Amino acid sequence: MARWEADATGRLREAALELYVERGYEQTTVAEIAQRAGLTARTFFRHFADKREVLFGGTEALREQLVRGLAAAPESASPLQAVAAALEAAAAQLGRHHDRSRRRQSVINAHPELRERELIKMASLATALADGLRRRGVGEPDATLAAEAGIVVLRVAFERWVAEPADTGLSRAMTEALAQLRTVTSAG
Amino acid sequence: MARWEADATGRLREAALELYVERGYEQTTVAEIAQRAGLTARTFFRHFADKREVLFGGTEALREQLVRGLAAAPESASPLQAVAAALEAAAAQLGRHHDRSRRRQSVINAHPELRERELIKMASLATALADGLRRRGVGEPDATLAAEAGIVVLRVAFERWVAEPADTGLSRAMTEALAQLRTVTSAG
Repeated sequence: MARWEADATGRLREAALELYVERGYEQTTVAEIAQRAGLTARTFFRHFADKREVLFGGTEALREQLVRGLAAAPESASPLQAVAAALEAAAAQLGRHHDRSRRRQSVINAHPELRERELIKMASLATALADGLRRRGVGEPDATLAAEAGIVVLRVAFERWVAEPADTGLSRAMTEALAQLRTVTSAG
Repeated sequence: MARWEADATGRLREAALELYVERGYEQTTVAEIAQRAGLTARTFFRHFADKREVLFGGTEALREQLVRGLAAAPESASPLQAVAAALEAAAAQLGRHHDRSRRRQSVINAHPELRERELIKMASLATALADGLRRRGVGEPDATLAAEAGIVVLRVAFERWVAEPADTGLSRAMTEALAQLRTVTSAG
């Protein structure tokens, strides 16, 4: 992707987020997003299918990060240790912009249709992790259980991280949530 | 609900499932479902919003079963033990009709929009479990982690149960999946 193209994506994302927070998601049009970014609606549609997808444009990169992190875990790692390595890699990608993530989450939380889209995205990430675990030779149901547990940890950690006013680190939140999941599942 | 009303619901569900398996979900109309059940389309719409919802009519009963099972767990139970009691109660409800569940799952698996609806249903069950755990005095993130882990177990167990040609018991599949989750999360 040429540099100006990458900039267009970023500018459209930032413009959309600003407008969703200022005016509300429903009230914002693609034309307004493009205008705020100093671009045309035509350019908008070269990058995103619609105004909802502007909020989910990072999914593919996140999935790749998770899968690469998983593949890079040592062979000796248990399924959950490999998932932890994937989460660590994802945190490096996902945890870069605390304020932007906070704003994005506030828009998503306020709209059931966006929460559903987020849910479907998370399920697709769990499927990618389970596929990756099976490629590492992990059988079922362990691959699915470890992958789904990993996505639960990612979600809980992400929600806690964005709920904090200052950026205390997504990686740290992931580590804590994973440790807490281990405690919860080992009790009794 | 009067007895004939309850029968109408059951007859519409069975008719819909038969037609979805025979002709395909997209090809089946509400008029055909009503006709197969010996009822009118008008009666159909008194029971279900549309042909998709026929497949998800049991969600409310399942949620109540889960929440009741959770509330009935002894006070001394850990969050995950309480969730296990909820799953046990759900299995009694959900595990009654192996063949029907198998057919329903085959229809859902074949259609992305139905899989998404199922995902959203599962998320709502996890929310209900987390709410129930907080009512039992469980704090965060433990309530969310235990609830989400429980729904992962329910999904994995249900999928394994319906994948088997004979009914080996959903309750047993739940117990096994929960034990396996504990093993996976305790490793390393």
